[in-house]
Amino acid sequence: METLKIGMIGYKFMGKAHSHAYRDLPMFFPTHIRPQMKVICGRNEEGVAQAASQFGWEEYTTNWEDLLKRNDLDLIDINAPSDVHKDIAIKAAKAGKHVFCEKPLALTLKDSREMLEAVELADVKHMIGFNYRFAPAVMLAKKLIDEGRLGDIYHFRAWFLQDWIVNPEFPLVWRLQKDIAGSGAHGDLGAHLIDLAHYLIGEITEVIGMNETFIKERPLPSNMTGLSATGNLDGQKGAVTVDDATLFLARFRNGALGSFESTRFATGHRSTNSFEINGSKGSVIFDFERMNELSVYFVDDQDDVQGFRRVLATDPPHAYSDAWWPAGHPIGYEHTFIHSAVELMEAIREDRLPVPNFYDGVNCQQVLEAVDLSINERRWVQISEL
Amino acid sequence: METLKIGMIGYKFMGKAHSHAYRDLPMFFPTHIRPQMKVICGRNEEGVAQAASQFGWEEYTTNWEDLLKRNDLDLIDINAPSDVHKDIAIKAAKAGKHVFCEKPLALTLKDSREMLEAVELADVKHMIGFNYRFAPAVMLAKKLIDEGRLGDIYHFRAWFLQDWIVNPEFPLVWRLQKDIAGSGAHGDLGAHLIDLAHYLIGEITEVIGMNETFIKERPLPSNMTGLSATGNLDGQKGAVTVDDATLFLARFRNGALGSFESTRFATGHRSTNSFEINGSKGSVIFDFERMNELSVYFVDDQDDVQGFRRVLATDPPHAYSDAWWPAGHPIGYEHTFIHSAVELMEAIREDRLPVPNFYDGVNCQQVLEAVDLSINERRWVQISEL
Amino acid sequence: METLKIGMIGYKFMGKAHSHAYRDLPMFFPTHIRPQMKVICGRNEEGVAQAASQFGWEEYTTNWEDLLKRNDLDLIDINAPSDVHKDIAIKAAKAGKHVFCEKPLALTLKDSREMLEAVELADVKHMIGFNYRFAPAVMLAKKLIDEGRLGDIYHFRAWFLQDWIVNPEFPLVWRLQKDIAGSGAHGDLGAHLIDLAHYLIGEITEVIGMNETFIKERPLPSNMTGLSATGNLDGQKGAVTVDDATLFLARFRNGALGSFESTRFATGHRSTNSFEINGSKGSVIFDFERMNELSVYFVDDQDDVQGFRRVLATDPPHAYSDAWWPAGHPIGYEHTFIHSAVELMEAIREDRLPVPNFYDGVNCQQVLEAVDLSINERRWVQISEL
Amino acid sequence: METLKIGMIGYKFMGKAHSHAYRDLPMFFPTHIRPQMKVICGRNEEGVAQAASQFGWEEYTTNWEDLLKRNDLDLIDINAPSDVHKDIAIKAAKAGKHVFCEKPLALTLKDSREMLEAVELADVKHMIGFNYRFAPAVMLAKKLIDEGRLGDIYHFRAWFLQDWIVNPEFPLVWRLQKDIAGSGAHGDLGAHLIDLAHYLIGEITEVIGMNETFIKERPLPSNMTGLSATGNLDGQKGAVTVDDATLFLARFRNGALGSFESTRFATGHRSTNSFEINGSKGSVIFDFERMNELSVYFVDDQDDVQGFRRVLATDPPHAYSDAWWPAGHPIGYEHTFIHSAVELMEAIREDRLPVPNFYDGVNCQQVLEAVDLSINERRWVQISEL
Repeated sequence: METLKIGMIGYKFMGKAHSHAYRDLPMFFPTHIRPQMKVICGRNEEGVAQAASQFGWEEYTTNWEDLLKRNDLDLIDINAPSDVHKDIAIKAAKAGKHVFCEKPLALTLKDSREMLEAVELADVKHMIGFNYRFAPAVMLAKKLIDEGRLGDIYHFRAWFLQDWIVNPEFPLVWRLQKDIAGSGAHGDLGAHLIDLAHYLIGEITEVIGMNETFIKERPLPSNMTGLSATGNLDGQKGAVTVDDATLFLARFRNGALGSFESTRFATGHRSTNSFEINGSKGSVIFDFERMNELSVYFVDDQDDVQGFRRVLATDPPHAYSDAWWPAGHPIGYEHTFIHSAVELMEAIREDRLPVPNFYDGVNCQQVLEAVDLSINERRWVQISEL
Repeated sequence: METLKIGMIGYKFMGKAHSHAYRDLPMFFPTHIRPQMKVICGRNEEGVAQAASQFGWEEYTTNWEDLLKRNDLDLIDINAPSDVHKDIAIKAAKAGKHVFCEKPLALTLKDSREMLEAVELADVKHMIGFNYRFAPAVMLAKKLIDEGRLGDIYHFRAWFLQDWIVNPEFPLVWRLQKDIAGSGAHGDLGAHLIDLAHYLIGEITEVIGMNETFIKERPLPSNMTGLSATGNLDGQKGAVTVDDATLFLARFRNGALGSFESTRFATGHRSTNSFEINGSKGSVIFDFERMNELSVYFVDDQDDVQGFRRVLATDPPHAYSDAWWPAGHPIGYEHTFIHSAVELMEAIREDRLPVPNFYDGVNCQQVLEAVDLSINERRWVQISEL
Repeated sequence: METLKIGMIGYKFMGKAHSHAYRDLPMFFPTHIRPQMKVICGRNEEGVAQAASQFGWEEYTTNWEDLLKRNDLDLIDINAPSDVHKDIAIKAAKAGKHVFCEKPLALTLKDSREMLEAVELADVKHMIGFNYRFAPAVMLAKKLIDEGRLGDIYHFRAWFLQDWIVNPEFPLVWRLQKDIAGSGAHGDLGAHLIDLAHYLIGEITEVIGMNETFIKERPLPSNMTGLSATGNLDGQKGAVTVDDATLFLARFRNGALGSFESTRFATGHRSTNSFEINGSKGSVIFDFERMNELSVYFVDDQDDVQGFRRVLATDPPHAYSDAWWPAGHPIGYEHTFIHSAVELMEAIREDRLPVPNFYDGVNCQQVLEAVDLSINERRWVQISEL
Repeated sequence: METLKIGMIGYKFMGKAHSHAYRDLPMFFPTHIRPQMKVICGRNEEGVAQAASQFGWEEYTTNWEDLLKRNDLDLIDINAPSDVHKDIAIKAAKAGKHVFCEKPLALTLKDSREMLEAVELADVKHMIGFNYRFAPAVMLAKKLIDEGRLGDIYHFRAWFLQDWIVNPEFPLVWRLQKDIAGSGAHGDLGAHLIDLAHYLIGEITEVIGMNETFIKERPLPSNMTGLSATGNLDGQKGAVTVDDATLFLARFRNGALGSFESTRFATGHRSTNSFEINGSKGSVIFDFERMNELSVYFVDDQDDVQGFRRVLATDPPHAYSDAWWPAGHPIGYEHTFIHSAVELMEAIREDRLPVPNFYDGVNCQQVLEAVDLSINERRWVQISEL
């Protein structure tokens, strides 16, 4: 049994999800490389010490540069806030470490391209955390398309709807600040939709978008961690500098039309990450809130029993199902991270690039920025312009 | 164009539904016999006069026996309260009229058998108003079973759930009085489930049931019409003499197991009339609240896309669809009555017995009474005992 | 009982729907003005004679100009193909007749404005057939918005998805020819979405769209009627001159963001006419395939039982429910036309303009053309430009 | 940090689920007692050695009696086949170990009572693996009932539908043999429904049931493990000695009516474990295939927005939600086992009996046997008879 020795930077929401993936992997995928949880890193010593103990890391540190100097680490897992991804990833690559980076790759396309150059130059493996690709129902959609069972693709429409900041008294957390988060709903949620579009449909050629910040100012929090924040700073308010919602239209290289919407103001939707694809031979519909299901329609079904089927992706033919429970027994959000880790381990064993990787991260960033440019200049933007 | 001259007794909820069926039929089924709405009868002159004018009947009367003496009527349509069905139907048959009677045929099995004898002796056409058979989605279920596409049938489970009397202050309307209504949820709702079971699965051989009257006394209304009632009689209360809910288990001749539940105490359900059938090759699920849909599952679907399909029974291959609107455009409750009338007209033109008819009414009554007997004697009852 | 004497031009799909509405209205809404079905007009004598008899019109004619000369007609109902709406409507107005015109009002904005001028100048009542406004579940959405129960509106997203021309062998019917139909999915389906947006959210200020014709050529039919066509002309093909799909983004005067999609290439969707609205206090979701339901969410629900409610618009508090069946009993597509006719009769009795009327038709046309302009010029277009 | 030292007997389907629960618990519930996975036991050395390594147990053994002699174990976890539960549990109790036993407690009521006596006499903690109680949506149902928000309970209907043995060529695995499994669908699936009924509604007083074995003989497998089996023994067949399906009606002490159905022949249902409860003030509906959702209805909602709400039990107010992911992010089947383990740890720390425990196991067994008796004697059986 080989092992892959991991150092991880970040210990909040994503840090927990990644840690759990490494922890569960050997139990459910025993024939794969076993991740070894060597060291976790975070800026707050108390916090990271607690995380190390809770998540099962052997050591912790508050200085991420120390990780790069160690000889006993094969992979650096980066899930710290987006503004530090670039610096860490490039230095990790230079230090000869494989890199697994959470999305978004960086705050800008330029930065993400530099990151890609660095990992390619260093010839290390690189992967990006587009975890939704690894829901078995999404993989079924991919399979149906690849096997031609949906025919020519005409439509891709996708929406990622949340409502956690609808209340105007919700404070100005870091995800609402452009200098740290880079983007709002667009980069946080839309990035996942764009990646799914690339994965399922292919290259996007042009886009035009619009966005809005519905609540322009919010209370400054006195303290904040992860997704939440508490207290407020003497009633002071600060400007929200990211988008609350971004919508855009797109054309794909293969002729399909795309519609994308990401918002944190879709009241009643906790986390509706959904897409629909219509092709000449069939259609599929996915909603992450019911992540084990894919609605599937085929034109060639007998004419008196045509209709969308509710397929459970926990049935034996589906991806990763043999690792889990009997058919009909749900798996959850965290499993998308475990499956991501499985791909990472497999790729490293097979000495190939994992998928999705920094190329996918750059492609995603390119569309994100093209949309922003189309909004700023109020015009259609060719992806190739960027 | 032939016509069928109709005299109708009853002018409330069912009277309205039947009238509308006759009125709409020639427009949507122009090649059929055209129903001629000659005369409507009711006990309250003001009420029936208003109904005649509103529904489009040529004349009205308050004396139903007059109808039987007229030579210009071909069919008597009986939708007055259940306690008068028997007398009218038998006399109508003796007068040589065809008879269309709402369910339940009568208050007792004995009475319903006398009615059947009378119509058979008189050699008139007879039909019973089990309208739910005529939802196109139900007819699709029947077709799939008849063509063997569901294989051997293992399970039939059906439930008819309403909640209109959950409030204990809801008054003691006639439907809650055994001497007029004959039965409560069992006869009102369960009768439909039993008929659907007969239609779809076949003969029931034995049953055991239980029932309950959750609210034993209710305010006496000062005035009541149709399903509703107003005012109350000086705060007086009267005993509820019918069941609020009846459940029973059943075995079918073909080996299938049946589960039936009818209740007026299923809070949140306005009128959930639903069944599911599981066979060796497939399954179907129906819910009248979404009456244009049938969920259909086939064992032999490809193994990676198995799942219940949501089939819209408004697609062109489905029953009656060519009379209505394009695929995907819903039809409603009243269409089940129009389709019933179509069957009535077709059968008369073809000089055959309509389906469902008084035999089906008697079969249903037999099961209803077998269930009641099983409740009274707390034992399994063979249908053949009655 | 007053009556309104009607002459109708058109006798196919919409002619049938309108005729049925007039026919049913007096039965279910007996206290309203009674429509009198005087004369129906169509170009094919055999066809219109058959329609007159089947639908219940007193007379028929093949010359629509005759209708305008008659003194015994109060209202002209226009549901002939879109290219003749303008001429008829203007002449009918000049002849002092009220006008009920199917959507779209005309093939161009200019034409529709002339029509509006004409009816205003003649001081006759005018109405347009945006029937989906009259689904009780849509009216509930309107009520919730008007009463402030959804708060400030952030998002309106709407999609009208059909699949009847996915097969490339489907022939080139008139709805696929620009000179007759004016537009494809955009004018046929998108017009309904735009009207619903106007009704529910309010004025649209700017738009940008894209469209596509996926199948550029189709077989020429030898014969065609209504939605369908048969045979083909010796294997000849003709160019499809309308859009198969149109998508656009929009901003509303009140700050809401809009997303619209209309397509005839959404495989598996027979007629999914759907919208979702998100506001600061709540959200609603509607799908015409389940037209009796509205999903409703409220921010202020207790925190442990928050979620979208499936409200049945057949409950007693809902629009028109007292005319129909008990709660939980579905109504269908045709009822939206009956309710439209009720509004028409009420408005005429009350000597006010019905809603929606030609103003709404013009507003809709303005957005339709703005979208087309935005597509042609590949830029955002202000509605006020047109 | 205290630890609880565990020895576990069984290493297949349930062994994996339990092991994972112990493994994940400290990461997501860090303030609880930490389970220490000391030793795992199974009959097949190769199999148990592999399981120990894969699941993370420190040691393994093939002799379960060895476990009871060790001083370094606090708890014995029993998830071996049902026929050996009794012997192990009684000896473990006598050895002073706490006992966590999978359901069913034993093959017979008599045996399960002996087990209860033993653990009570030994004064050890005992728990039974009714894991479905620990789905947060089920706990929400419990909370709503306990707080009186559903009012008086009228109806409990529950169905556990699977289809894994519909194919008559599916082999005769141990779950289809009465001497090992004790029971078929009734004991395997119905036991869960009965426990949920006890948990949510309370005591059952009388029952009457029916059952069926649709496929009487099946191929003998040459090899079998867990739920699956491979090969066949030269085409030989053996008798299926358990029920394929069992249905029963029940009365509850509080006056509610119950309907229960368990089957392995519900084609299209992989694992539909579902119940509905109707009370005077509201209703709830649960389906384990969508385990993060509870449909909730309240009578007292405003009259124009009444309807079942789809509540996501991943919202912050719900049980265990703070241990997992943000609202709207699904959890899965395995989480019910983790939550069970949390209850076990909490109870031991607080020196109280965990819930559910052997009393619940005995109560469930009592109803299971009462149903069997009612089937054998074809009569209503009082639970108190047994």
